[in-house]
Amino acid sequence: MKTSQLKNVVFTNGFWKSVSEINRNATIPRCQQQCEETGRIDAIKLNWREGQPNRPHIFWDSDVAKWLEAAAYSLQTTPDQKLLQTIDNVIDLIGKSQKSDGYFNSYYQQFELHKRWTNLTFEHELYCAGHLMEAAVAHYETTGSRTFLDIMCRYADYIDSIFGVETGKMQGYPGHEEIELALVKLHDATGNEKYLKLAKYFVDQRGTAPNYFEKEQKGVWRDCFSLPYFQAHKPVREQDEAVGHAVRAVYLYCGMVDVAVKTNDAGLLQACRNLWENIAFKKMYVTGAIGSCYHGETFTDAYDLPNEEAYAETCAAIGLIFFSWRMFQADKDSRYIDVLERALYNGANSGISLDGKYFFYVNPLACYPGGTLANGQRHVPRPDWFGCACCPPNVARLRASVGQYFYEVDGDTVYANLFNTNNAELEVGGQNVKISQTTNYPWDGNVTFAINGSVTFRLALRIPGWSREHQLLLNGKPADAKMVKGYAIIERQWQSGDKLELLMSMPAEFIYANPKVRHDVGRVALQRGPIVYCLEEIDNGADLNAISIDPAQTPELVNSGDFGGTVLLKLKGSRIEQWSNELYRAQPPQEKAVSLTAVPYYCWGNRKFGEMLIWLRSE
Amino acid sequence: MKTSQLKNVVFTNGFWKSVSEINRNATIPRCQQQCEETGRIDAIKLNWREGQPNRPHIFWDSDVAKWLEAAAYSLQTTPDQKLLQTIDNVIDLIGKSQKSDGYFNSYYQQFELHKRWTNLTFEHELYCAGHLMEAAVAHYETTGSRTFLDIMCRYADYIDSIFGVETGKMQGYPGHEEIELALVKLHDATGNEKYLKLAKYFVDQRGTAPNYFEKEQKGVWRDCFSLPYFQAHKPVREQDEAVGHAVRAVYLYCGMVDVAVKTNDAGLLQACRNLWENIAFKKMYVTGAIGSCYHGETFTDAYDLPNEEAYAETCAAIGLIFFSWRMFQADKDSRYIDVLERALYNGANSGISLDGKYFFYVNPLACYPGGTLANGQRHVPRPDWFGCACCPPNVARLRASVGQYFYEVDGDTVYANLFNTNNAELEVGGQNVKISQTTNYPWDGNVTFAINGSVTFRLALRIPGWSREHQLLLNGKPADAKMVKGYAIIERQWQSGDKLELLMSMPAEFIYANPKVRHDVGRVALQRGPIVYCLEEIDNGADLNAISIDPAQTPELVNSGDFGGTVLLKLKGSRIEQWSNELYRAQPPQEKAVSLTAVPYYCWGNRKFGEMLIWLRSE
Repeated sequence: MKTSQLKNVVFTNGFWKSVSEINRNATIPRCQQQCEETGRIDAIKLNWREGQPNRPHIFWDSDVAKWLEAAAYSLQTTPDQKLLQTIDNVIDLIGKSQKSDGYFNSYYQQFELHKRWTNLTFEHELYCAGHLMEAAVAHYETTGSRTFLDIMCRYADYIDSIFGVETGKMQGYPGHEEIELALVKLHDATGNEKYLKLAKYFVDQRGTAPNYFEKEQKGVWRDCFSLPYFQAHKPVREQDEAVGHAVRAVYLYCGMVDVAVKTNDAGLLQACRNLWENIAFKKMYVTGAIGSCYHGETFTDAYDLPNEEAYAETCAAIGLIFFSWRMFQADKDSRYIDVLERALYNGANSGISLDGKYFFYVNPLACYPGGTLANGQRHVPRPDWFGCACCPPNVARLRASVGQYFYEVDGDTVYANLFNTNNAELEVGGQNVKISQTTNYPWDGNVTFAINGSVTFRLALRIPGWSREHQLLLNGKPADAKMVKGYAIIERQWQSGDKLELLMSMPAEFIYANPKVRHDVGRVALQRGPIVYCLEEIDNGADLNAISIDPAQTPELVNSGDFGGTVLLKLKGSRIEQWSNELYRAQPPQEKAVSLTAVPYYCWGNRKFGEMLIWLRSE
Repeated sequence: MKTSQLKNVVFTNGFWKSVSEINRNATIPRCQQQCEETGRIDAIKLNWREGQPNRPHIFWDSDVAKWLEAAAYSLQTTPDQKLLQTIDNVIDLIGKSQKSDGYFNSYYQQFELHKRWTNLTFEHELYCAGHLMEAAVAHYETTGSRTFLDIMCRYADYIDSIFGVETGKMQGYPGHEEIELALVKLHDATGNEKYLKLAKYFVDQRGTAPNYFEKEQKGVWRDCFSLPYFQAHKPVREQDEAVGHAVRAVYLYCGMVDVAVKTNDAGLLQACRNLWENIAFKKMYVTGAIGSCYHGETFTDAYDLPNEEAYAETCAAIGLIFFSWRMFQADKDSRYIDVLERALYNGANSGISLDGKYFFYVNPLACYPGGTLANGQRHVPRPDWFGCACCPPNVARLRASVGQYFYEVDGDTVYANLFNTNNAELEVGGQNVKISQTTNYPWDGNVTFAINGSVTFRLALRIPGWSREHQLLLNGKPADAKMVKGYAIIERQWQSGDKLELLMSMPAEFIYANPKVRHDVGRVALQRGPIVYCLEEIDNGADLNAISIDPAQTPELVNSGDFGGTVLLKLKGSRIEQWSNELYRAQPPQEKAVSLTAVPYYCWGNRKFGEMLIWLRSE
């Protein structure tokens, strides 16, 4: 579903209604407050002076842009005149500060305009431009006003005059990808083919010989910051392994899918498929988080997924959602939604506190706050903002636009991908279709679909990868459905009052990692439906690794008031008893039986900050 | 035993005879060759010119010094006219380059003499001076010539004129400790109290307020390189936790013990005891290695002992040997020798290849050469030298002087600490005592002592901490011995032909780590006698973490020609079978039975470089 249709999916209850309210009432205001207090909005006025606090930074525009985008999505489903006025004022500032040639960058315009485009590799001009374009499209879709859109079209036109294969243009491309996918959005909003062509240029040019970044940086690279870090080590069509900075990578792959689909480029799409499979089958945490290495925020090798030292940036999980969504749109395979759902409920949700006001940049799968990690870092509680603040407004825009992922209409087929109590209005082959869902998902596997109106279409119901058995009842009787790529497809002329029940058993399961993941061998993770669980110190005491569990048991489900109706899991385990002084001994340690409580991973770190563990030792 | 008496312990067979020969024939020549080829010796001529290769470096003198020290020890037990001439030539160069005021530093004298002593915190002048002093004492002990000793006394006198509490002197101390213990050696060799006083000054002054390093660095610190890194965060008497750079730390603690013992300072000695216990009971790998963190080569928190990312610098294990030896000398407790022996056979020995020509700086307890580690590094085979080459000559001097640790005479007591076939001549209360050991230790637990001559003394025989049961036979009959601090003490008038047999059963044992070591919980290490074992990929296939073992089994002992008579261990295990593609699944993995071969840890990485693992998953 397009973000222009977000208002057509209304959460009337349950998980995403709560999340949307928290996003609207806490997270978006927090982003605004921080953008104001840290000088990010003032920076747009271009009047910062040496000696003042809050010196503008190269990527600040992108933080403001993502907040604007989040606000615009939120306004589409929940009008708010004051918020609209606030963002329009910021857009007005951007318009006033934009140069007559179309350029806008609050950092370069204040400090080194003469150096614009001289360090594409490491600086973030095109990245900031991309985020502003996404925000402008969101603002246009919500308000119908072209003010912001026109500003960004002028900027895009200017960028188009600078970059390209033509003689006299720069043959560069962004060090931090983002503008590729943004230009496709700008193309879709305006119908201007030039923007698609420019997006295709940035995609095609990347990593070709002679290498632009090599030339720009004169071949000097430090640490991990070399061509693979920027996905510029070879042309993108030849890339089949996700490498380098994880957020850069998945943003690029999004742009690649967009260009492949819009230009009907099967080879490029196959490269995207290869890259997605490389991530999903070799480089993804069980939480859907990606980018395991702190150093350079990078992907590392296949199956290299350390838990305690996991980088697993919130933005990278969000980028994987964006990438997987696009792959679904291209291939209509539910495997992509399985990954999207995994990242959405776990690796992205963990990046924000339950009250929506505090954020993790890094999302480890094991936390030992008492210790220095092998990467030299320490685990700390969620702060309310970051100097490099990409993640908070990214969560905000994801949550404000999450409705887009529930349904997708393709010809006469309606794909139902995610589950929550909601009312949706869709246009299917010229017919208006109203579908409502009623469910307590993700805490229960039963979802009831009610179709309103006499309409003919194919309903493709995603049967999640986590589901081992399900029943499908149409008006109380087994429905006649065939499975295609993970979807139960029911084709019929629907009648008002039709009730389709998807009944999925949702036991808590112990999950095993591929034995090549050396960090997880001999361990199990606890998952129920799409939710990955963890143990926290506050419930289970310290030294969580001293605990082992027998995966033959059936955990008990408990509804907890503490976590807003969340299902907690009670299980039995053994705990190695501590001994004193001696560091090594030949005598085996004693064990005692313990009762354990597991909470959803995304809930961790919301009470007393302490140890946390996803992969439990298996007996 | 003093290093001046090294010649009194002659290895006639077995492990240390082999090691000594390798050290003499391969390692010391390799150090010489590298010191020559890399320009370290030429640097002493002070005639390097810009544009030439091998620009001298701040710590090069220390590499040369440790090679000289190793050579001097070696010459004491095995005269070699050519080697003697070679080192005398180098000493001659040092003498010629020494400034008239006594100062000598090949880096500062060439590049920035006006800046000497201006960056005690980060530079290595006093550290280099200390190593040169140690070398000079070794040369004096071996040759009786005062040439080198006098050079270094002049330098020490000059340093004494610069540093001290007195008005007009600098109240500084070294950023890298070493000179403290070296000055005590210089004091012992010369009898000059001034050097002991200066050592005491450096020890006492460290970390006092106002902090010298704070002042020198103007309070600017980056990353982990702040006061605790230099053990300068508080006065040394108040320190009870080993912190900061591990080599710096243990070198300091050596100097502290030396000063405490020589000045009869019980408070200072108690601080040393506290620090030693902190290391041995909370911060030491099962290999005797210390300093777990790559970042800054530092100690981290108690029980924080990651295996794959272990830094565990060879020099730090060697430093722990030095520190433990001094603590034994002060307290006469065998627990110190247990740690010394653990570090000697494992964490220090692993730092050098079996042929004595290749070196590890970093000694991980698990190796995954295919992957990027959580600290951003990769495991690589031993190279033949390092840019920062502290470890190779440190191993060389340790091995050339290992004889000193076998016996210690205190009054009328002879402590027998280590075991190897050797002949020793000791002076006990004015009597000449000849003791010979016959044993295949560390591959066998039986050691026979033969005493020559009719002499009365107490023999204190160390019963190693690893030994669960032993028999002590005097001339074939159970000996009457009492245990004191880990020593079996036999007091008698010995007769020529007396034969004392120490019969220790030496089964392979599975060792458990304290449950607070989260990295090792649910795992066991394999140890036999003082030797820690590991699995290597070449014997057991890749994905070693997919293997688990039942610690109830009794490993089979195999004598291997491959490792020069070394005892290998055969055991049975289970191996999780690999599965393809899927990264996570609910179905438990299959296991199959496998036969495993474990080799001594110090032998790892001498064949095809691949995975290695010490802590095995326990069934």
